[in-house]
Amino acid sequence: MKHKVTFLPDNITIEMEHDGNLFKASKAAGIYVLSSCGGKGNCGKCKLVVKTGTVEPGQSRSYLTAEEAERGYVLACHSKIQSDLVVEIPHESRMQAKHKIATGANPDDILKLMKQAGGCLESRIFRVYLDLAPPTIDDNIADFERVRRALDNAGFGAEHLHMNYMMLSKLSRVLREGHWKVTVTVFSYGEVLEVLDIYPGNATQKRYGAAVDIGTTTVVVYLVDMKHGHIIGTASTFNSQGKCGDDVITRIVYATEKNGLKELQDLAVGNISTLLADLAEKNQIAPGMIDYVVVAGNTTMMHLFYGIDPQYIREEPYIPAATFFPPVRGKSVGLGLIPQAVIYSMPNVASYVGGDISSGVLVSQMHKQEKISLFIDIGTNGEIVLGNKEWLVTAACSAGPAFEGSGIKFGMRAMEGAIEEVEVDPKTYEVNYRVIGDVKPIGICGSGMIDILAEMYLNNVIDQKGKIREEIGSKRVRRGDSGLEYVIAWRIESAINKEIVITEVDLDNLIRAKAAIYAGFGTLLRKMNMTFDDLDKVYIAGGFGRYIDVERAITIGMLPDLPPDKFHFLGNTSIMGAYYGLLCDRMLHEAEDIARKMTYIELSVSRSFMDEYMSALFLPHTNINAFPTVKKIMAAKNRLV
Amino acid sequence: MKHKVTFLPDNITIEMEHDGNLFKASKAAGIYVLSSCGGKGNCGKCKLVVKTGTVEPGQSRSYLTAEEAERGYVLACHSKIQSDLVVEIPHESRMQAKHKIATGANPDDILKLMKQAGGCLESRIFRVYLDLAPPTIDDNIADFERVRRALDNAGFGAEHLHMNYMMLSKLSRVLREGHWKVTVTVFSYGEVLEVLDIYPGNATQKRYGAAVDIGTTTVVVYLVDMKHGHIIGTASTFNSQGKCGDDVITRIVYATEKNGLKELQDLAVGNISTLLADLAEKNQIAPGMIDYVVVAGNTTMMHLFYGIDPQYIREEPYIPAATFFPPVRGKSVGLGLIPQAVIYSMPNVASYVGGDISSGVLVSQMHKQEKISLFIDIGTNGEIVLGNKEWLVTAACSAGPAFEGSGIKFGMRAMEGAIEEVEVDPKTYEVNYRVIGDVKPIGICGSGMIDILAEMYLNNVIDQKGKIREEIGSKRVRRGDSGLEYVIAWRIESAINKEIVITEVDLDNLIRAKAAIYAGFGTLLRKMNMTFDDLDKVYIAGGFGRYIDVERAITIGMLPDLPPDKFHFLGNTSIMGAYYGLLCDRMLHEAEDIARKMTYIELSVSRSFMDEYMSALFLPHTNINAFPTVKKIMAAKNRLV
Repeated sequence: MKHKVTFLPDNITIEMEHDGNLFKASKAAGIYVLSSCGGKGNCGKCKLVVKTGTVEPGQSRSYLTAEEAERGYVLACHSKIQSDLVVEIPHESRMQAKHKIATGANPDDILKLMKQAGGCLESRIFRVYLDLAPPTIDDNIADFERVRRALDNAGFGAEHLHMNYMMLSKLSRVLREGHWKVTVTVFSYGEVLEVLDIYPGNATQKRYGAAVDIGTTTVVVYLVDMKHGHIIGTASTFNSQGKCGDDVITRIVYATEKNGLKELQDLAVGNISTLLADLAEKNQIAPGMIDYVVVAGNTTMMHLFYGIDPQYIREEPYIPAATFFPPVRGKSVGLGLIPQAVIYSMPNVASYVGGDISSGVLVSQMHKQEKISLFIDIGTNGEIVLGNKEWLVTAACSAGPAFEGSGIKFGMRAMEGAIEEVEVDPKTYEVNYRVIGDVKPIGICGSGMIDILAEMYLNNVIDQKGKIREEIGSKRVRRGDSGLEYVIAWRIESAINKEIVITEVDLDNLIRAKAAIYAGFGTLLRKMNMTFDDLDKVYIAGGFGRYIDVERAITIGMLPDLPPDKFHFLGNTSIMGAYYGLLCDRMLHEAEDIARKMTYIELSVSRSFMDEYMSALFLPHTNINAFPTVKKIMAAKNRLV
Repeated sequence: MKHKVTFLPDNITIEMEHDGNLFKASKAAGIYVLSSCGGKGNCGKCKLVVKTGTVEPGQSRSYLTAEEAERGYVLACHSKIQSDLVVEIPHESRMQAKHKIATGANPDDILKLMKQAGGCLESRIFRVYLDLAPPTIDDNIADFERVRRALDNAGFGAEHLHMNYMMLSKLSRVLREGHWKVTVTVFSYGEVLEVLDIYPGNATQKRYGAAVDIGTTTVVVYLVDMKHGHIIGTASTFNSQGKCGDDVITRIVYATEKNGLKELQDLAVGNISTLLADLAEKNQIAPGMIDYVVVAGNTTMMHLFYGIDPQYIREEPYIPAATFFPPVRGKSVGLGLIPQAVIYSMPNVASYVGGDISSGVLVSQMHKQEKISLFIDIGTNGEIVLGNKEWLVTAACSAGPAFEGSGIKFGMRAMEGAIEEVEVDPKTYEVNYRVIGDVKPIGICGSGMIDILAEMYLNNVIDQKGKIREEIGSKRVRRGDSGLEYVIAWRIESAINKEIVITEVDLDNLIRAKAAIYAGFGTLLRKMNMTFDDLDKVYIAGGFGRYIDVERAITIGMLPDLPPDKFHFLGNTSIMGAYYGLLCDRMLHEAEDIARKMTYIELSVSRSFMDEYMSALFLPHTNINAFPTVKKIMAAKNRLV
């Protein structure tokens, strides 16, 4: 038996089997409902309101407040369809299209940055205009050999010239059409030179490429004029894989246990395709003119993008299928928009340190400096690199995506409606906040969470362990479903008609996340027999990283207590590195050298990491002397009180 | 309106449009009717008998004897279907499956020959057994890198290891299935090493490959045990492209002007596929175990095999699209039987000197000798190579396929029913002949034609110009539709119920063919300022070449008048060379060096060639002093007469 399910406010109706799952129904309808667990039933985010009809709500109740249950809320993933339905997806359960994603430094500056780093406009894929001598009886070599000879004479070392059969079968025609003046698109890979395409006449003036960052959370695309190196358009969207789980582990499980590999591949490729098509249209460029794409992302994202089973990434000893992926054509990964384009990816280092990090190091240029730098990428995962021009060590600190909203009751990504700045009045415990888009709040994003932690700690609302001090006697402190909680925004101030709170469970999750990050670089330093004082620079990368208030991050013990001028915000270095690699073969080689040079340290089995982590589960740290600035502020605050 | 057309004796019925062409109908029915012109209407070979029904016979009549017309013969290509038909394909109009094709030297000897030539069992594609150290936390490189490292450590220089996505996606699983003991099939191309396949455990014991000769007339396949180098089976068939034309020019026209490129490709690939499948079945080998194929053939055959338009091969200045074809997978050319197998081809030299000739030189080893050799491949085309270890010059002498039966009234290939040996009695002018298969004759094959020319000339039935001496007064001399003719076999001796004759037109065609061959090497020698006396050896190759009687060939002036011990018959060197290249990478390289080293001389525009050719249009030659042996025999004969 089938039932009709209508989703509001989209007013999309689909048919589903009796007893069908409402989460799957929303996916089938093409509506992305928030979910951190990918429909496994344990994140409590995919709330819907049943307007008419009946569902069997399963365990929904245990994730809902009494009031929510009364108002007809259910969890989509727990609910079985029992009749025709009309359901409404409330504002807070939707993945938003309107959002704020860091796309890197100002596009106009990135070319300059690349050149400062030693990059040039000599891509691994390039075009060459050939003015060939027409064949004669005395010079009657094959058409292919004529092109080879010309490329060789032009200094491209074409001994092993390759051409696929599609090219070979049009070669003779195009040579004659162009009266022996042709342009070839050439791909130089190791000792092999491959002709990717051939055009009559001089077609070297217009050529396009794309740099792509496939983040766990967001996908960013730059459309690039390869001739001049300009970024002619940028676009971004949430990674649609999000509906299958917030973090890489959930997605690996989804790929492996739920046979979702192809689905995940299609979702990410679909995002890229949509962004590329939009950019091409906006800039009036035929997508076929895009002949080169460089992609960066973490190792799991790369496996999913290429359709390679990532299963062993999450099983000890955590082995990826590949770190350096061979070049591939668009059609092989399903990029039908640009089937002939060559796709390269920034080299990965290990299962939990990917091409986004080799990109990041490339952009930071820390691998060329005498002095020691620390590179931190705080995105959905937390990766760190320590080193200089002699050596590089790297680790992933499994911070988890708490600062992106996962596991936090009102956590959300940095999009419209997210509380991004918070202040707590030291006397009244009243809260001031700023919301992205200046609208009524619907949740709290990463920078807001850091502020909340810091402000609550500095103003004695919570203790060093993150426990709420009930004794302060504020009306904002109250007991909720999951223990004590603190009200950040009252119902009347909120767009979702309920209080936005931070719970002790949330606080605990955030402290564990920040502790993991801090313990990560603590462990790397200790491994290298160094202290924070040895650091010349701390580079902070990641979309999330752009909005961090360093002082607050130091206050909660997420970043080390160093002078502010040592911190450098780089923005989205993943896409920037992909752009460097796209434009400049030397830069791609440099990234490959970086990836090979990095020593990966697996923290999940490190005793030293566990010790560092345990010590960091306090605000700012068990050893307050490691945070002299915070100690001073606290002392001053306490004197004031 | 549609009509039913039934072909006898096959009893295959198909439907065709009113006014449809009967030649096309036979192709649609899958019946291969003899044709030299590919259905263009000018060879007169596609004779059918209309048993019931009506056709509009067009110009058929001009190609038929009065008797044939009376008996209901029509030419299939000229006939338009006017009603339901029952047609019979007479024996002489069929392409036979039962035939006699030279497949090279004795298979058991070829491995020995290759080793004598310096070959070994180190193929460009090979298998390596890898006993890998399982990954640990401290040795946690990616699976791909682990394989790369092992290959590198084993000395295979795997810096640029390549693996396509199908392989990469099964890599992790197979490594673990095999408990880190795996076998990889590796392809070494230039500086790039590619993993073609991976199997759990040790799979190095059984591996198969195939050598293929795509001749214009015949297709030959060797199935090879790559581990030991043994030829475990050979098979051959006529090239089904024959129905689209006998020679390469007709096929190029068919490919270009009739849009028949794909059809021609499918026909040759279909032949290979059928032969391979049969061999695999007979030897109980799964076709999937064949992972490497090396193909040799002339340049046009190679274009057609790869599906590359050969159009410019026949237009001055005669330029092929390619001479060195890049490696390709089976599926790319439509070899669905072995989609993953890598296909290589023996390197071509120019439009009319192909991989069959670089194969031939490789087998002859003339390119390593101090002294000068002449290599002649008399197949459907006639190619010659002159040189030694210092230099090689080559040319194609456009002899045409007369000796394979094309343009000869009763010409046919060397198959059952062909007259292959002929003697003419000097006094009675009676004829003795031997027929392949010891059956009643249906036509005359190449060696029979050489015999006829030689015997008729030696016994004064024809003069030096090939004109029949009516004055000898034999009843075998008579006037037919195309002038004077000589009866080789009487109707009662023939399986086709008519006299088998040789006409003056035939004699003229044969003399022109032999003159072109002789003029070819004459011109090359003159170019190098040499004479026949400078030749140390004359290598004769080609399936046809196996049956040539040297003495008779000298008599007609097709071969130079040299001592018999200078002539060496090599057999089908095209397939032999492909086999060398299949087994031994060094041999493939050697062939590539040979092809690069050869200087191609275009005879069709050579004044010197025209002079040589004109002089050779006599039996044996205008300059009888160049043929002292023939002169002596003639003198002796004339004394006897």
